Order: sequence, then structure tokens, then C-alpha cells
Amino acid sequence: MNNPAQQQKKPMTAITPTRAEDFPEWYQSVVRAADMAENSPVRGSMIIKPYGFALWENMTAIFDKWLKDYGIQNCSFPLLIPVSFLSKEAEHVDGFAKECAVVTHHRLEKGPNGGLVPAPSAELEEPYVIRPTSETIIGDAMARWVQSYRDLPLKLNQWGNVMRWEMRTRLFLRTSEFFWHEGHCAFETPKEARDDALHVMGLYKKFFEEYLAFTGYAGPKTAEERFPGAIETIGFEAMMQDGKALQAATTHDLGQNFSKSIGIKFQGRDGKEAFAHTTSWAYSTRTLGGMIMMHGDDDGMIMPPRVAPTQIIILPVIKDEAGAGALNEFCDKILSALKKAGFAAKVDGRDMRTPDKMWEAVKKGIPVRVEVGQREMEANSVTFVRRDLGKESKTTWTVDEFMAKIQGVLDAIHDNLLSRNRKFLADNTADISTVAGVREFYAADKIGFVRIPVELLQDPELDKVRDEFKLSTRCMPFEDEGRKVLLAKSY
Amino acid sequence: MNNPAQQQKKPMTAITPTRAEDFPEWYQSVVRAADMAENSPVRGSMIIKPYGFALWENMTAIFDKWLKDYGIQNCSFPLLIPVSFLSKEAEHVDGFAKECAVVTHHRLEKGPNGGLVPAPSAELEEPYVIRPTSETIIGDAMARWVQSYRDLPLKLNQWGNVMRWEMRTRLFLRTSEFFWHEGHCAFETPKEARDDALHVMGLYKKFFEEYLAFTGYAGPKTAEERFPGAIETIGFEAMMQDGKALQAATTHDLGQNFSKSIGIKFQGRDGKEAFAHTTSWAYSTRTLGGMIMMHGDDDGMIMPPRVAPTQIIILPVIKDEAGAGALNEFCDKILSALKKAGFAAKVDGRDMRTPDKMWEAVKKGIPVRVEVGQREMEANSVTFVRRDLGKESKTTWTVDEFMAKIQGVLDAIHDNLLSRNRKFLADNTADISTVAGVREFYAADKIGFVRIPVELLQDPELDKVRDEFKLSTRCMPFEDEGRKVLLAKSY
Repeated sequence: MNNPAQQQKKPMTAITPTRAEDFPEWYQSVVRAADMAENSPVRGSMIIKPYGFALWENMTAIFDKWLKDYGIQNCSFPLLIPVSFLSKEAEHVDGFAKECAVVTHHRLEKGPNGGLVPAPSAELEEPYVIRPTSETIIGDAMARWVQSYRDLPLKLNQWGNVMRWEMRTRLFLRTSEFFWHEGHCAFETPKEARDDALHVMGLYKKFFEEYLAFTGYAGPKTAEERFPGAIETIGFEAMMQDGKALQAATTHDLGQNFSKSIGIKFQGRDGKEAFAHTTSWAYSTRTLGGMIMMHGDDDGMIMPPRVAPTQIIILPVIKDEAGAGALNEFCDKILSALKKAGFAAKVDGRDMRTPDKMWEAVKKGIPVRVEVGQREMEANSVTFVRRDLGKESKTTWTVDEFMAKIQGVLDAIHDNLLSRNRKFLADNTADISTVAGVREFYAADKIGFVRIPVELLQDPELDKVRDEFKLSTRCMPFEDEGRKVLLAKSY
Repeated sequence: MNNPAQQQKKPMTAITPTRAEDFPEWYQSVVRAADMAENSPVRGSMIIKPYGFALWENMTAIFDKWLKDYGIQNCSFPLLIPVSFLSKEAEHVDGFAKECAVVTHHRLEKGPNGGLVPAPSAELEEPYVIRPTSETIIGDAMARWVQSYRDLPLKLNQWGNVMRWEMRTRLFLRTSEFFWHEGHCAFETPKEARDDALHVMGLYKKFFEEYLAFTGYAGPKTAEERFPGAIETIGFEAMMQDGKALQAATTHDLGQNFSKSIGIKFQGRDGKEAFAHTTSWAYSTRTLGGMIMMHGDDDGMIMPPRVAPTQIIILPVIKDEAGAGALNEFCDKILSALKKAGFAAKVDGRDMRTPDKMWEAVKKGIPVRVEVGQREMEANSVTFVRRDLGKESKTTWTVDEFMAKIQGVLDAIHDNLLSRNRKFLADNTADISTVAGVREFYAADKIGFVRIPVELLQDPELDKVRDEFKLSTRCMPFEDEGRKVLLAKSY
């Protein structure tokens, strides 16, 4: 890099380092540059800043409506879980339930050094943990609420925060506290539970693709990767630009395992007592990290237009102060027309240099950036750039044309993101049928998923390769009908 | 009550005991009968059931939009607060910050009896508390985010759960964990902060009255009732049907007290460093308890129509099974027309006795109950009852008439609730100008607020009366321009 000629050849990017140079560092830079989140003084817990939180709000609003249309009822269960509840569910104990925040006292008092310490007199008889999931506390309520087959199906959901103590954390991808929704349903028959797990996975896939331009493979997990206690876990596995897998959502068919351990039983139509068939499912703020790693480029975030906090940003390019008034007025007129038509639009009228505003819009991934100068105003037109295509896409349209066609532009951006992500996924999924082939693939530093026949999982040689390259089974894609399984490095 | 004649005279009510017999017990029964919430296995934390949670969701959706229109940005801050943050803010230490859930460990392990215990090796160096409010953690971020006057105003809000360890809890009214929103703003000038505290109190009052039919007095608190560290706290004080006050929302002008203790400073327009002027404000799920105690009657909850989870419920009154098909179809047609027009309507088609469904609708406080039998169907009409007026309001209209006028009916219910609550508030606020008068009022077992000249607060004799009857100062109503103050028993 000491050769000036080389330095010149490297294109200027808003984000340093680039994806190729250091993908994990690039990721952190994008989050920072887009002003989406930051680390907090609480180890492992993030602050989601307004721009990142607006994205999450847009996502939850859409999906919440879908859940309600599907008959889900939202409710709220306690943040704290009695430790005895975790002990009850033996398989939880060996799962994630151990690494969690434990509440042992209910009062602070002045300590010897003047600071505050937990009051010894206020030690709880039974400690609580902050929910790592609400499985047991919701199950306990279901056991009370379900008495007869008439009470079924019971379809509950909760949007909320949960906590799993993480040693190594990364904004959105792995944080001790995160946000999610968790659905917990109880059914009369095994078929209904199975259908629910499949249906909700279908909702996830549709939501991710149609709103987030976020694609991946959906299918059952292998036994080793199943949720503790589930008879089937279905995962949605997305591929990041470094070829690693990110699990973006799961649904679980818990059969009667969970209802038996917690006592969710009902009087059936035949008058006999039976245990309910339950499911649970979730997606979390982790998806935001996945969206950054799937869509972003070396200039920062690219926001999928249908959930973008700002879909269109208008920059008045003021060259001389005398004309500023008219120009600002012109921009405001376009803004109100856009808002009236239902677009999330904004004028950036801050007292800052235009190139700085432009780069900020780029780094934040705002889908359409409109630049309006004297020339545009005189021609009653606008010039705009698509974030996904960059400056090559610069187009000038009359205001009427822009208003008539802007929805189409946003849809085209969505389609472009989705199809390029689909292509990347397909291009980086290798069909391989031998253990040697798997070793060769990863030894050659290729990135992506390998899709192998499920029988290969029985081969002890494969375990060595998996250990060597830190591969895990991701899912058995539905389209392969259980004959193939995906292996990948993962987040 | 052993006299059968007396028993007969007492009207049948859905709720036992009645308000007159035992107001606190009546309250608990209403919550249960309306299926809004229940106690959980976590001491002091409630489960908000779907019907109660839907009410909260409707309330938050409206108010959240108002906040955004006002320029508020939502975001998310950590659930846990380092204990050192509380120690920093000396006045917090002496406030509610001591009674809170303390996290001391980050892992569980198997204990001597096979159960799970906090792992001694996983004790935190510095304990955390679950946020009793996010004042300090948001302030810490503001101190980083605010550098120049250009960064101001900074107007943030968070919807979330908080925890204050409560010894005696009551569903909605006082629970260890509760839901709220908390706004935290920073301004350049004292006037902006003062205006913000006033403006947001105006939003609360408007929201409570126009959507919840919930009325009360707004005005500054006395010094003794101010939020620790505030230079002014403005409260919204509502009167429950037992005459006690419920504080339903507060806004705080913190002046520079808070920004000085936490370091929120900025470079001003004059190039000099200055401390920001901050505010904070909130309302919580406590308002749901207030709504029950303000609107409800001896038959249960009365839901204000503009936030009611179900505004209109349709009961098909099936007398013979042969006609059931046509009747259900007729009801479904009305239902879709109502839904299409934007009403939250529902058909109760469950296999249950009609009187049971009717009483359930009454206890849940559904504003309009429509009953449709063979006769109604043949006349293409509906019969309906207003929850606020009871069976005396039974009306039969053609379906067309009903569709045309139902919005007016819901508005009339809202207006009726609001005006009867206003009347109750006015009727039970006594203007008294002497200490003897105050004693006389409460000694006579009268219920309600007394409004006294502020100077009377200086009289040591008043303190004795206040102690005797457990009276606190509620607020100095705006309309009295600081000359009067309200005293009351309170929740």
C-alpha cells in the first residue's frame, strides 16, 4: 500500500475496511456509519438508535398484522422466571438456560464505601432469572387456561426483550439482551401443531423475501440442531456475503414433550384427558444484523425499500443563498406530495455541505436520493439516484413523472436486491456428494454452503472435516424433500 | 342479609361485591371477570391477558403516532442499569431506586439438592438493577450524543417494561413490573424544556379525554411531591369512583439539575459550553387500572369505545337449529360490513348459551352488543344495547340505519362516559378554605378531593389533618393559576 499508483487504483469507499479486506470489521463500521446501534455501558447489551429502531418498528408492524390475521393473540408475561421453572424442564437446564442474568436481591443499600450494594436482608428465597425465553412461564399459564378441547387452539404471542448472557457479543448478531417475538401455541391434534410450524415458517419466508428482500433456505433441522425438547425444528438459513450461515428464524413442533413436562392437558371430545400438542416460533433483532450483512456494500447499508425508515431523501442543492427560499419551497412541495401518497420521505435541510449529506444518505442506505438544484427547479424536475445501483443510475424526470413512477422505482430496487441475493445464494451453494469433496471445497477457501446427501452425515470421516472447518448442519431444504442437508460455517 | 325480602330487593349484578360494598374487592373482580389480567407465579408481576393487552396496544398505537408527529424518535436502551449509575445521581438513591431487582450473577449451576443455584464463580463484579426508569442510562447516552447546539433538541422515547420492587401489589395499579413509555428530551434553553413539559401534559390530557373518556386535573405538583431532581413536576390527577386520586401521567422539567449530574453539555451558539435543559415524562399500564375504576359499574368493565378491543359484538340468537345457517350468514354479512367500515367488530358464534355470551360481553364492557334473532333477520334489522346505558337503551334499527349511525352511537357512548366522569369529578371536589373545613369534610366520611388555598399548606394544623386522613397534595390545577391546591387520599 506504499505504492501511490496502487492507492489510486483502489476505489474510494465510504466504509473502511471493505468487505473483502475484513468482513467482521466492515460489519461493525456499517452499523456505526448508518447510526443504527451502539454498544452500551451494560456489558453485552446494545443501544438501538432511532434509525435502527425505526427499521425494527416497521418490521414488527407488518409481521404483527400478519400474526393477528392468522388468529394470534398478543399478551404479556413476566420478565422474570422462577429458577424452579427452569429446573422443571430438564432439557432446558442443559440448554441455554444456565447462562442468564440471575436476580438474587430486591433492594440496594448504602455499602461500606458509600456506594450501593445488594441489601443482605433483601435476598430472595428463590432467585429469578431474566427470561432467556418465555417457554416455561407461558406454558404454566397455558396449563391453567386450557381445560377443554373448546379452549383449543390457543395461539399466543409476545413481543419483548429476553436475555442470554453472552461472552462475546456483536451488535444485533449476538447480544445478551435482544428483542424478538415469541409465539406459543397449543393444539388438539399432532397435525394441527405440525401445520402451524410449517405455516409460520411460510410466513417468515414470505415476510423476509417480500419485505426485507432477504432470502435463504427453509427446512427441518437435523436432530443435533433441534431445539431441546422439540420433535421438529424448522429453520430459515440465510447466507451472508462472507458465505456464512445466519439462522434468521425458527419454528418448533414440540409434540407433547413440553405439554407433558408442564401439564398442559385438556378434556378431549371423547371425554378423555389428553396432553396438548404445542409449538413455538420466533425471529429477533438478529435479522437486522443479517440484513446488513446480506444487502450492504462497501459504501454502507442498503435498506430494503418496503421497510426503510426513510424511503426517499430530498437534498436541496443550494448554490447561492438568494435562490434558497424558492428551492426549499420547491423541495417541500415535492415532500408533501410524497408524504400524501404514503411514502416515508424526508427533506434534509440541515446547514451542512451537500456532499456530506449525500454520503450520509448513502451510508444509511436510503433507497432513493433526490437532488434538486436550480436547474431542476426551473425545469420542474428532479434528479435521483438509486442506492442499489449507485451514481450510474442517475436519472432526471419531471416531477409529474417522478410522482407517477416512484413506487415502481422502489419496487425495482426491492426486486433487484432480492434477485441478486438469490443469485448469490445459488452461486455459493455447492452440490457435493463425497466427504473428500467437502474437504476440498473448504480447503480451497471457497465460501458458502455445501449441500450433501443426508446419508453422508453417518460417515465418521465427515465429522473430522466438520471439526476442521467448524461446519454445522443448517437445515434440510424443503425442496430436496429430506434427501439433502446443508453444511456451512455459521454465525 | 338473612331477610329474604331484603335479598330480593338487591338488584342482580354481574360483579360481587358491588362498588358500594367493597370497592377494592369489586376492582379485583372486574379485572378477573373482564379477563384482562391475572397474578403470575412471579411475586408482584402480572400476566396481561389478550383482552387487556389489546386495550394497551390500541392505546399505545394512538399515542405513539402523536409522539412521532411531535418529533419524538423511538429507540431502545438496555434493560439493566449498572449500580454505579444510580449512585451517581444522589437524589435517585434516596428515591425509588433502592427497591429494585438486583442482578448479581450471570450463570446458574446444579446445586447440592439437584436444583439450580446462582453459580458462585459467575458473580458479577458490579451488580446491575433492572431499570426502575431509564433516566440515568439514557442520560449517559445523551451526554455522548449531544456535542453542539445543532444536536438539540434531542427528543427520545422508549416503550418498555420497568421494575420497582413492590411489597403490596394490585393488578395494573401497582405491580413490580409494569409497562410504560418514557420520554427523555434535551433542549438548548429553559423555555423550550418548560414548553415541552407543558405541551406533553397537554397531549396526555387530550389523549385521556378524547380517547379514554378519562378525565382529571392537570397542574404542577407541590415541592414535596416533585420527582427527585425536577424543578417542576406536572401531574394529571384522576378521581376514582371511591373518591381517591390516581396519578395517571406526569411530565418533569428537570432544568439543568440532571444534565449537570450526568454531563449533558454542548457548545452553544456563542461558542461557550453549556448544560442542556432536560425533561422526562411517562404514562403507564396503571392507566388501565384507572380506567376500570373510573368507568366500570356493578356489572363490570365499561370500555371506552375509541380504544375498545371489541367495539361491537354480534350475538346470533339461535332458537331452532334449522334456521341457524341463515342466521349465521346474516350475522357474518353485518360483520364484514362493519369490519370494512373500520370497526373492531366480532361475531360470538361459540357453542354456548346466549345469556352466558351476553353476560360475558357485559362484563368485558363491550360498548355495543347486537342481538340478532329470527325476527331481526326477517326484517333485515338488528337489535342493540349500549353498555353504558344497559337494557333500557335497547333499540331496533334496519341494517342500513345501523350501518349509517353506528359511528354516532359509539361517539355518544364516549361523550356520555366523559361527561358523567366530569360531573363526578366536579361533584366530588369541595372548595374549602379552612383547616377545620378540611377535617370536617373527611371526618364526615365524604369522598373526593378538597381544593384549598395554597397558603393553607403552611399551617401546621393542616399537617395533623393530613396525617389523620392520609391526605397528600395532588396538584395545583392550571385553571386556578397556582392559587389552589388539591388534597386527597390516593392510590
